Amino acid sequence: MALPVRTQWKYLLTFIQKHSSPKRLFSAGTCAGKQEPPGGGRIFSGIQPTGVPHLGNYLGALENWVALQSQYPSVLYSVVDLHSITQPQDPAQLRVNILDMVASLLACGIDPERSILFQQSQVSEHAELSWILGCLTSMPRLRHLPQWKMKSKLKNEGSVGLYTYPVLQAADILLYKSTHVPVGEDQVQHLELAQDLARVFNNQYGDLFPEPRALLSSTRKVKSLREPTAKMSKSDPQKMATINITDSPDDIALKIRRAVTDFTSEVTFDPETRPGVSNLVTIHSAMAMITVEEAVSQAKGMDTGAYKKLVTEALIHRLTPIREEIERLRADRAHLEGVLARGTHRARELAAPVLREVRHRVGFC
Amino acid sequence: MALPVRTQWKYLLTFIQKHSSPKRLFSAGTCAGKQEPPGGGRIFSGIQPTGVPHLGNYLGALENWVALQSQYPSVLYSVVDLHSITQPQDPAQLRVNILDMVASLLACGIDPERSILFQQSQVSEHAELSWILGCLTSMPRLRHLPQWKMKSKLKNEGSVGLYTYPVLQAADILLYKSTHVPVGEDQVQHLELAQDLARVFNNQYGDLFPEPRALLSSTRKVKSLREPTAKMSKSDPQKMATINITDSPDDIALKIRRAVTDFTSEVTFDPETRPGVSNLVTIHSAMAMITVEEAVSQAKGMDTGAYKKLVTEALIHRLTPIREEIERLRADRAHLEGVLARGTHRARELAAPVLREVRHRVGFC
Repeated sequence: MALPVRTQWKYLLTFIQKHSSPKRLFSAGTCAGKQEPPGGGRIFSGIQPTGVPHLGNYLGALENWVALQSQYPSVLYSVVDLHSITQPQDPAQLRVNILDMVASLLACGIDPERSILFQQSQVSEHAELSWILGCLTSMPRLRHLPQWKMKSKLKNEGSVGLYTYPVLQAADILLYKSTHVPVGEDQVQHLELAQDLARVFNNQYGDLFPEPRALLSSTRKVKSLREPTAKMSKSDPQKMATINITDSPDDIALKIRRAVTDFTSEVTFDPETRPGVSNLVTIHSAMAMITVEEAVSQAKGMDTGAYKKLVTEALIHRLTPIREEIERLRADRAHLEGVLARGTHRARELAAPVLREVRHRVGFC
Repeated sequence: MALPVRTQWKYLLTFIQKHSSPKRLFSAGTCAGKQEPPGGGRIFSGIQPTGVPHLGNYLGALENWVALQSQYPSVLYSVVDLHSITQPQDPAQLRVNILDMVASLLACGIDPERSILFQQSQVSEHAELSWILGCLTSMPRLRHLPQWKMKSKLKNEGSVGLYTYPVLQAADILLYKSTHVPVGEDQVQHLELAQDLARVFNNQYGDLFPEPRALLSSTRKVKSLREPTAKMSKSDPQKMATINITDSPDDIALKIRRAVTDFTSEVTFDPETRPGVSNLVTIHSAMAMITVEEAVSQAKGMDTGAYKKLVTEALIHRLTPIREEIERLRADRAHLEGVLARGTHRARELAAPVLREVRHRVGFC
């Protein structure tokens, strides 16, 4: 009997990860320069439609997505709803979450004129290329990839969708002949599969795909406010652990006031021995757009209680316009759907000729 | 490193199988009658583009496909090229094989006015629905299905495409809300997956798919002429073992003359103890459109040598017009492409609203 997977670690499989600043970007992997689109490369990244992002998503990925728009001539960001159904989803909630994610991306600074912002399931070429690439992927190749290994630990069983998730991810990237993919450490192995599949396809059918480079980063990771050794997560059962970018000033103040610190009143930055306070410093520096050193310096003479007020202010100052813009956009469903429709149209214009060429090379036409 | 599968048992995965006569058809499985398309059901079947079919394909499936056209109001036959690439293919040869298969189907009596004859890869909804159904299929569910079990025996490793083959097969069937699928015994488990997935989807998202019924048959299996306990197969290394439907009269005569029989000169029908002679009787009765008893009766007084001439004549009589029609059609590539293009258009007209509804129910729109 075929059964869906039942676990709920929604963020595990999200591609997105953080570059703490554009200057710290560096590239990994190889890339056949001659195969790059003219003018300096193409970015692809995807995010699962989990609704409104939390602070970890914002600082871990979205802030960087915004920056990449002015660094690359061609940028695609996809709301990867085909990926989201590798975990059980409530359809009505998923519909809301897709538009909430679009509203959030726009509010955070994704500019649909500079980026192609689109919904994965509306571009049929993703699933089609995924099938073709799956025929070039050996079963054991996927067995040790993060998405499956982490799942197996939990239940020792999963769906075909979960197992083949990285193949669809490779299709997402290669379909646009993307040259650069922002990834976190947990996604490096998945990108390596995309690189392998580009090579395997090129070897078998002639050069077509650039091998996409990883844009790795020295990440600025936001931790749970209640358990600061763990990542901040949407699915955290402790509601006080996670700040959503739509949290009200009161909610933000309450969550920061309740944030776990330690018994030393002075503010220092030492993530190993003082994860709670250091997490607050990370958040403060990111929100105030200052360095960690500057943040610690501003905290001089304050105890953690007083410092929490400073952090709260920085959060409210930065998140309020984003929250207000999300609220405004959420009220205009037609606008959001229009943005997605235009993005889908533009994505298809890029994807269709690539898939047509793939079909021809494979021998379908 | 991702690598394609390297074995070559091309016919293993073909859906098609035989009903020895329309009268012997019976149905298995369950079917929610209220969900059937009005007017008595819809047939779906697929065949891999292996080029010109052999006699086993013709008698095992195609003859029945032709008969089904006048028994069901809606009939779809697909050249399943997405399935074919689960085994390594030469692209140029695959292109030729697709059109050769279309020419052969037409020559055998598939009428593109009564059937929708189309190429699977040209209807993107197949791959899309396959992804969605894969998210409802547990990994262990596929482990013991025939396509993988037989593969594992050979090499203990295969491609993702091979493993997930039955999910795509389920998508092929459900995409058209098919009610009946002609299958052989080796495909019953695959159809059961399609039935399961229809149930799982309906339970989770509301009734949409009929549970497709198997059209099983007491099969009339054609055996290898050189090793009459094995199935006739395109990939048989012994060229004398297999009759292609385009074989010349001289080739047919030679192959039948060389066919393995035994040391009893009398002609009888006993597949267990006399597989070689019985295979000739099967072929004779099928080609002459008479019963096995009538064939044995016609052989009275003949030794196997004389009987082989009778079998040869029946084969030449039946296959010559088919061969000539295939030759004529092969010379008219534009016509074949036109037939496929019209079929693809009609298939899409049926598939698109179903996938649109699936997307909506899942929560994508």
